[in-house]
This record gives sequence, structure tokens and C-alpha cells, in this order.
Amino acid sequence: MSLQVVIIGAVAAGPKSGCRIKRLMPEASVTMVDRDSYISYGGCGIPYYVSGDVADLKGLTSTSFHMERNAGFFQAAKGITALPGSEALAIDRAARQVRVRHLASGKERLLPYDKLVIATGSSPFIPPIPGVDLQGVYPVANLHHASAIKDMVAQGQVASAAIIGAGATGLEMAEALADLWGVEAHVLEMAPQVLPGLLDPEMAHMLQTHLLAQDGVHLHLGARVERILGDGEGRAVGVVVDGQTLDVDLVILATGVRPNSELARAAGLALAPNGGIQVDQFLRTSDPDIYAGGDCVSIRNLLSGQSLTLASGSLANRMGRVIGTNVCGGSDTFPGAVGSFCIKLFGLSVARTGLDEQRAAAAGRQAVSPLVVQADRAHFHPDQKLMYVKLTVEKDTRRVLGLAALGENGDAVVGRVNAVAGLLPLGVTVEAISNLELCYSPPLGAAMDVLNAAANTADNLLAGLLRPISPEEFSRRLAARGQGGCVFLDVRGLDNAQPYLEALKPDWLHIPGETLSQRLDEVPRDKEVVLVCNSGVRSYEAQRVLEAAGLTNTVNVSGGVAAIKKWGEPIIPPAEEE
Amino acid sequence: MSLQVVIIGAVAAGPKSGCRIKRLMPEASVTMVDRDSYISYGGCGIPYYVSGDVADLKGLTSTSFHMERNAGFFQAAKGITALPGSEALAIDRAARQVRVRHLASGKERLLPYDKLVIATGSSPFIPPIPGVDLQGVYPVANLHHASAIKDMVAQGQVASAAIIGAGATGLEMAEALADLWGVEAHVLEMAPQVLPGLLDPEMAHMLQTHLLAQDGVHLHLGARVERILGDGEGRAVGVVVDGQTLDVDLVILATGVRPNSELARAAGLALAPNGGIQVDQFLRTSDPDIYAGGDCVSIRNLLSGQSLTLASGSLANRMGRVIGTNVCGGSDTFPGAVGSFCIKLFGLSVARTGLDEQRAAAAGRQAVSPLVVQADRAHFHPDQKLMYVKLTVEKDTRRVLGLAALGENGDAVVGRVNAVAGLLPLGVTVEAISNLELCYSPPLGAAMDVLNAAANTADNLLAGLLRPISPEEFSRRLAARGQGGCVFLDVRGLDNAQPYLEALKPDWLHIPGETLSQRLDEVPRDKEVVLVCNSGVRSYEAQRVLEAAGLTNTVNVSGGVAAIKKWGEPIIPPAEEE
Repeated sequence: MSLQVVIIGAVAAGPKSGCRIKRLMPEASVTMVDRDSYISYGGCGIPYYVSGDVADLKGLTSTSFHMERNAGFFQAAKGITALPGSEALAIDRAARQVRVRHLASGKERLLPYDKLVIATGSSPFIPPIPGVDLQGVYPVANLHHASAIKDMVAQGQVASAAIIGAGATGLEMAEALADLWGVEAHVLEMAPQVLPGLLDPEMAHMLQTHLLAQDGVHLHLGARVERILGDGEGRAVGVVVDGQTLDVDLVILATGVRPNSELARAAGLALAPNGGIQVDQFLRTSDPDIYAGGDCVSIRNLLSGQSLTLASGSLANRMGRVIGTNVCGGSDTFPGAVGSFCIKLFGLSVARTGLDEQRAAAAGRQAVSPLVVQADRAHFHPDQKLMYVKLTVEKDTRRVLGLAALGENGDAVVGRVNAVAGLLPLGVTVEAISNLELCYSPPLGAAMDVLNAAANTADNLLAGLLRPISPEEFSRRLAARGQGGCVFLDVRGLDNAQPYLEALKPDWLHIPGETLSQRLDEVPRDKEVVLVCNSGVRSYEAQRVLEAAGLTNTVNVSGGVAAIKKWGEPIIPPAEEE
Repeated sequence: MSLQVVIIGAVAAGPKSGCRIKRLMPEASVTMVDRDSYISYGGCGIPYYVSGDVADLKGLTSTSFHMERNAGFFQAAKGITALPGSEALAIDRAARQVRVRHLASGKERLLPYDKLVIATGSSPFIPPIPGVDLQGVYPVANLHHASAIKDMVAQGQVASAAIIGAGATGLEMAEALADLWGVEAHVLEMAPQVLPGLLDPEMAHMLQTHLLAQDGVHLHLGARVERILGDGEGRAVGVVVDGQTLDVDLVILATGVRPNSELARAAGLALAPNGGIQVDQFLRTSDPDIYAGGDCVSIRNLLSGQSLTLASGSLANRMGRVIGTNVCGGSDTFPGAVGSFCIKLFGLSVARTGLDEQRAAAAGRQAVSPLVVQADRAHFHPDQKLMYVKLTVEKDTRRVLGLAALGENGDAVVGRVNAVAGLLPLGVTVEAISNLELCYSPPLGAAMDVLNAAANTADNLLAGLLRPISPEEFSRRLAARGQGGCVFLDVRGLDNAQPYLEALKPDWLHIPGETLSQRLDEVPRDKEVVLVCNSGVRSYEAQRVLEAAGLTNTVNVSGGVAAIKKWGEPIIPPAEEE
């Protein structure tokens, strides 16, 4: 008799594994159950459906050739029996069967299996806030929520919304609401930054500065949401945050997800401490006939060695293929993840992979990650935009641990991060990035790419050639100016320096870099000298010149004025990027 | 006494090494000579100066902060004595000195050195064609040529131009002339394809189809240029190609470059068989006090192990830094190159790295490289464009040897190639690309990225699950239709298939993929069945279904109709990309 496969969960990892199984072993019998009526959809696309970029829900449930991925499609095109609206209640491992209830009819049945795939995904974490059960309060976990939110907005019922959580989903929903629909979007985040756990504070600050400049976006960081207020009819009409009330028509819960591992746990399968289902590199659970993949499993962080759960349609799809292969007797592996992530908000893209300096420290690894700012292609090409990157390099081993990048050309930002992501598990050192052979042509890259420059800067820092300070450290010094702690030395041309000289004298000095070696006497020796140029390159050169003359009392502002402005220093006059 | 360094050549590797030396060792005395009056310029930007994207020559000779990189700048800002217009005549290794002639005055002098850096670059290869010395015949090797060409064009003297050579420079110049200036640009190439030695024939054909659709671009492939014709006043007025005369006002020689290694050879330094200066991984020549880098050296191809010369401002800059470090006593390495390359022409970008199938075979390595076509981000996102990629994978070792990609979102194309470039020297297998953790968000990537899909397709091919044919093989079969050799089976929806059914019956059959398992009897068993869908995915699925039913007489068109059209099949009606 042919192999009987049951798959629990039909969104990403489930269908992918099922299709792979049928291609490898057409005679296999594959049954896929899901408690939802929608199956095989692009959940990450929900904010784009709400914004209108994706015109209707079918865009998220259809193939690239516009065929809806419903049960009929899976039967006809894939030979898979899909049972939407059917919940898996229990796994009987001894009898090798899954008890399933058809939710509409209440009928139960037993599905026997030779191999079982658990792809139960994750569920939104519902924070324990009074009022979360009011009408008009939605998580963003499935297409029903998407549809309900879009309907409210499209019908003009939403002038103002509270979004609890400044993770990726929360911010994407804020953009969707504010940008197209003109909704006042209040993002309420407990942490002191957006994208906590995803971006380091410096990159997050740059993104915050960008978000704050958008109409209709209101960031409330370090905010404690006390309760959601209802009207007499059980509808949410406000949110109390740190004692203040915001009137809103819609509340979105975007406070993260938790792996759906209860079914596995109840069946006696091993879970990881983080609550995800434990799997080996073949994505087998503690029962060799049961595989698991997608948001519900715990995977290995290939850099820290720690276990993590990572809700990602992308990882889920890749895991699905590995499971499909292995169910059919193969031995493909999924060793883990480095944590690649990206987001695009109001035209600004941020991406990262691996560890940042803080997360490296938390994993017991001391690292540097100087900020580097450079054009994303030939600086003389009209399409160029500045890119802001931080390469994380371990101090003692010189190993590359991660990269973050931010800029307006989103594909270029993501391209730099992707160029490093695959190298991270291989343990390369900073030299590999210094010499990384990126494609070069003026419209598409730079002769010395920003990635090469980032590696060279980290190398200089590790060699003691460069003493950088961050935009935040600059900002603190600027706020304390006049107290004699330091002086700022601008090494740019006079046209660039003039407004600063006028606004910030006597603390702001000016000696153009190319005259510095002739004017060493003018540089103070009795206090810290903060070197500033447009991008941090000329000021590094100045630091070397001064050091050669015995002046070791300098620090160099990483990324220069470009970084200071992007970061959002309030004193420096905003101006055109160069 | 401080270290005395002489650098011969002041375009890319030379200045980079000099600046690095001064930052590491400020007390060093650095003198840099160049026979040209222009130094430290972005030669790769010349086509963009001719096109007008870069407004004036200063754009190519200035820093990102608009300071001209002339001798005065190098002295003041870098502490480097630059001697433009001064030719190095000979290196006396025993006496450690370089004899230099100031070209304007004819005066000679001797420059003593402790360490010497040779960065003499490359010179255009001037083909032995009668008439190359006529007026109006220019290579594109320096800013004097750039200036002369731009002046002729801007003064309206050029209605028609011949560009000899369809390498990167030739094609970029053709775009510059045709696109902005409306010049009829005839590209004359001896090889049967554009970018010979850079792109495989299939990718080149796609690019050719694109170029042929542009106003004013005329490709003459497999063309033999016999002579350049002059008028009575010594001015070029025509080109004779395969017996036919083209009337032109300008002739551009873009037939490649040769390393400038004569000075090194005359000094007794070892050269590689390809004529480049031999260097070790520290970029030292056969004389340990002499380093060399940039276009003039022979470097190791990290995949084939063969030596190559590669004219690239990008490699030159990276080598310059390594040389600078090592001159100061460091031990940085430059192990070689994998050959990353990109070009953007009339809105279409092509990039590649490593080996293609043909070049792998030439290096004794059997490989596969199926064409894969997929959206470059979520297929439901409005910014998506199709990307065409070929991943080269070695058959027996499953090692990834190279990648080529083509598409309209240039940064996305280059991003995919860059994501693979760094992995190539590390010997990763196809599994590393199947699991490659690219950033995912609908506006910036796909849940199963085209790179992941390319690896999965190569894996399927190696496993015998997929039997692909290329667009060219499809085209040959289509041209021979009606001779009973094969039949075409379209597995798309009827709306897609209808025009083909009408135009190509009775050889074009139609069975939608999702009905195929019910209609097996209708599929011919006595001849080859060529499976066709929009992108090659559904037809792969059909191939698996038919194979399960015992029909092994099928082939699958890689990339489907999208690839066929992009390749430029003349019979298939052109239509919208999907």
C-alpha cells in the first residue's frame, strides 16, 4: 500500500511539504487539515492588502498564475486532499492516527498516517490588557482579521487607530493605515525602540526619525498600555496609555506570536525551552515518524547556538521542502537560521542578518560594529542614495557576526545584507568582506562597495587606527557643549561648515582636512576633540594626521553629518543629504 | 630615515595603496607618478559622462565631497607627492630607483625607493585593422578619449557610429550614443554573441533581444571588420564589415585591454603566461620589495585555478588597500577572484559571478545550469518584475560554481549575484543555496526566493526529476514543427493557451495542468511531448504527473513562455509579461 501522509496545518510549511511529497512520490496519499477556511496564503502580505497595494484577498491566496489555492486546486493540481475548516484534536502516536473535527458539522474522524507533518504555525500573543475582547480589537494573524480591518477602514469607520506593538507587523500596519487611508496611527510599544529584538538601538533610532517625519504616524515608545476602553455597546473607542487616553476607532494587537505546539506537547513530543517543537536537522521531532516545520518549531541560531522560534513564511517554505524530501526517504537538512530580516516603511528599507553588537554581547561575544555611510553605487551616478551599514565583527576572532543596512533603494539595502547572510554560518573573518567581490558598474555598485568599506572600517577599528563615536554619543556631547568637556572640529569645506560655525560657536571649530597638517597648532590638546565631516571618511583621515602629530585626544563621528542627521540629532539643522 | 615609497600609476590601485600607506605610516614618503595628466579618476564612468548622466569630467575626477583629486589635493589632503604627466621609463632594482621623465619638459629624474608599487593598469588593445589611425577613431581608455568623443557628439558631428567590440565598454558606449544622443550605433562583434567571455550564450541572447528592440542600436554579430575608411582629409567616414560599407562619423575601438606589464618585464620581474605581472597572495612580485596590483597583474581564478587578468576598478581598489597594508609591514592577502560582473543597458540589468556551464566544461568540470524564472519579490506585490537566473552546479560534487541573473530591477539582480559571489570560493554545495536565508518581506523579496528556487531546480535536475530544455532548444523544435518530431503540450489556462492553439495547431495541444491526471489518454506516447507553461513550474509538475503514469517522453521548457519570449523566439507572439 502507498505511503499515507497526514499534514496538520495548511498555510506555508504544510502545503510546501505536501507538494514536494507528491512530486517525489506521486503514489503517496497526502491529506492536509487546517482549522481555518483559508489555506495556503501569504500571511506576510496582509499589510499590503490593508493598504491596497494588493487589491483583494485573492491576491494572497492565489498562485502566480492567478489560480486560487483552495481545496479544489490542491486536489486537482496537486493530488492532495485538503480539509480546511477541520481541526486536529489529538495525535495518537501508538495507533498512528490523528483525530480531526470538522468544525462546521462537529463531525470527527480518524486519519491514519505512516508519516505525520506538524505545521501548525503560530498564534498571536494576546496581551493581558483589560478590553482586548472588545469589538474593533484585532490581531493580524489570518485573513479573517485582515478582511475585518480592511472593511472597517474602507468603510470610513477609522479616523484613528492604536497599534499595540512596534514589531514588523505593527509598523507595516501603521504604514498601511496612515499612508493610504489617512488614519492617525498610534504605535504603542513597551520597549524604548521600534523593532525590539530585531534592530539595534542605533538603526532603530534612524527608522524612528524617519517614521516621526510621516504624516499620521505617532510613536509612543516605552509606553505602558493600561486598558482598552469600550463604549456601551462593547466597541473599542479608546486606549489608556501611561494614564492618558487616546481616542481610537480600531485597536490592532501586534505583540508577537507564540508557536502552536500544544498538540505536539499533548502527544508527548519534546518541546524546546522556548515552547517550540524540538526538531533535529532533518526536521524530525522526537518521534521519527513525525516531522515538524514552520513557525511552530524551535530552530538553532547558527551564530549564538541558542534556540529560537522565528515566525517567517520564508523559513517555513524552505523547511517544507526539506520535510517533503525526508518524508520520502531523503536526508535533506535544515541546520538552522542566522535571522535575516527586512522591512520597508514609507520608502525607507532596513535589513539585517546575524547578531548586532548587543546580541553578540548577550551571547558572550565581544564585537565592534562601527556605522559606515556611503553611496550605494558610484557616487557620481545620479541614482545613488546614501546607505547606512553596520557590520558586526567579533574582537578576538575577527569573525563576521552580522550586518544591518538602511537606505532608500530597498533592493540595494537587502542585497548587501543577503551578500553577508550566507557567509555567516561559515565563520568567515572580516577579510572576506574587505575582499568580497561584489559586482561593479556605476549604475549598480561602487568600485569600493559600502560593504567593503564597512569591513575596512571594522578592521581599522580593531587595529586601533580609528576611535569612533556613534551619532548618539555625538548627540550627548553636543547637548553638553559649553561645559568644557570637548570641542568639535569640522574638517569639511567652509560652505558645509558655515551654518554650524554660526550656530554652535565657540564650541565648533573649523579646519578643512586638506589644511590640517599645516594648522596643527590650532587644534586644542587639553580636551577631547570631536572630529566631524560629511560621512566619517575625511574625519578618519584627520584622526590619522592628528595622531601622527601626537594628538591622541580625538574621536571620530561614525558616518559624519549624514549619520547624525539620519539618526535624528535635534540640534543640527536638517539639510539636504549629500 | 622614513620609508620611501614610489608608486607607478595613479588611477585606482596606485592612489588607494598610497592613501592607505599614509594612514598607516604617516611618516612615509610617498611619490606617485603617472604619464597621464588626469589622475585618480573613475574610468568606468566614461560612458555615463558621454551619455550625460555625469554632467562633466570633474564628476569622474572628484571625491564624493566634490574636491578634485589632482596633484594639489593629494599633497594637501593625503601628504602624497603626485607627479602627473611623468612617465616611468625604467626600474633599476639593484639601485632601487625608478627613472622618470616629465613628458612636457623632457626632463628626467631618478626616484629612489625602499618599496615600489606597480599599478600601471591596462591599455586598450588596438586591433590590426587598416584605418585605425584615422581621425575620429578612438579607444575608450582615458578621459582624453572620453572628452574627444563627447565633444564630437555634443557638437552634432555624429549621426552614426561604429563600435568595434560588444564587450561591456562597447555596449555601454552604444547605449550612451543611441539613448541620449540619437546616434545610430552599429556594434560590430567578431563573436556570435554580445559580451563574449562574460555571459553564456543564453543570457547573451536575452540581452541581444532587448538591445535589438531599442531605437538606434544595430548589432552585427559574427562580424569581420575589414577596414576603416577615411575621407581625403584623414577623417574616418566608414567601416567595411563583411564586404559591406557602413557610413559612420565616429569609430570606437572597444576590443578589450592588455595589461601594462612591459616596465615590469624589462626590470626582470616574472610575468604570467597571460602577460600580467605575476604576484603572490600578498600582491608581491618576484621582487619582495616590489608590489603590483590592478589591471596590470595576473590573478588567480578561485574556481578554475587558472590565471586571469581582469580590468576592474573595483578589484584594483581592493588590491590597493592590501598593497598599502603590506608595504607597511602587514600581511593582508588577496587570494584571487571569482569574476563578478554586471551591466545595465536600457533599463535591463545582467549580472554574473563564477563559472557558467560552458566555462565549467572548459575547466574540466561537468555542470548543469537550468534557467529559472520567477518574480523578484512577492508575486502579489505591485513592484515585482520577473527575474531570469541560472545557477551553475557541478554534477558530481554538487558544488555551486556560478550564477547569472537578468531583470529590470537592477539592484535586485545584482543583489542575487552578490549573495552567491562570496560563497563560491568556500566550496558550498547546492543545499546552501536551497536554504540560503535571504531577507523576506513582500516589497523586498519572496518567501521562496528565486535563488532558493534556482537551487531547488538544479537539485531536481541532478536527481533526475526534471528533464529541461532551453528556450533555444524549444525554438529549434518549434521551427521544425509539423515534421512529426514532437508535439507541444500547453498546461496553462485556456486564456493563456488560446492564441498558441490557433496559431500553431495541430502541433500545439492544450490540457490545463490541474486536469492532466484525468486526461492522460490524450497525451501522445509515440513522440516527444514538449511541456509548456508560463514559467516552467506547472510544466514541471505536469512532467512529474506524466512520469508517474509511465509517460517518460516529455521535456519541460525551462522558464516557460516567459523565458521563450525574453530569449526572443521569433514565432511566439510577443505579449505582456505575467
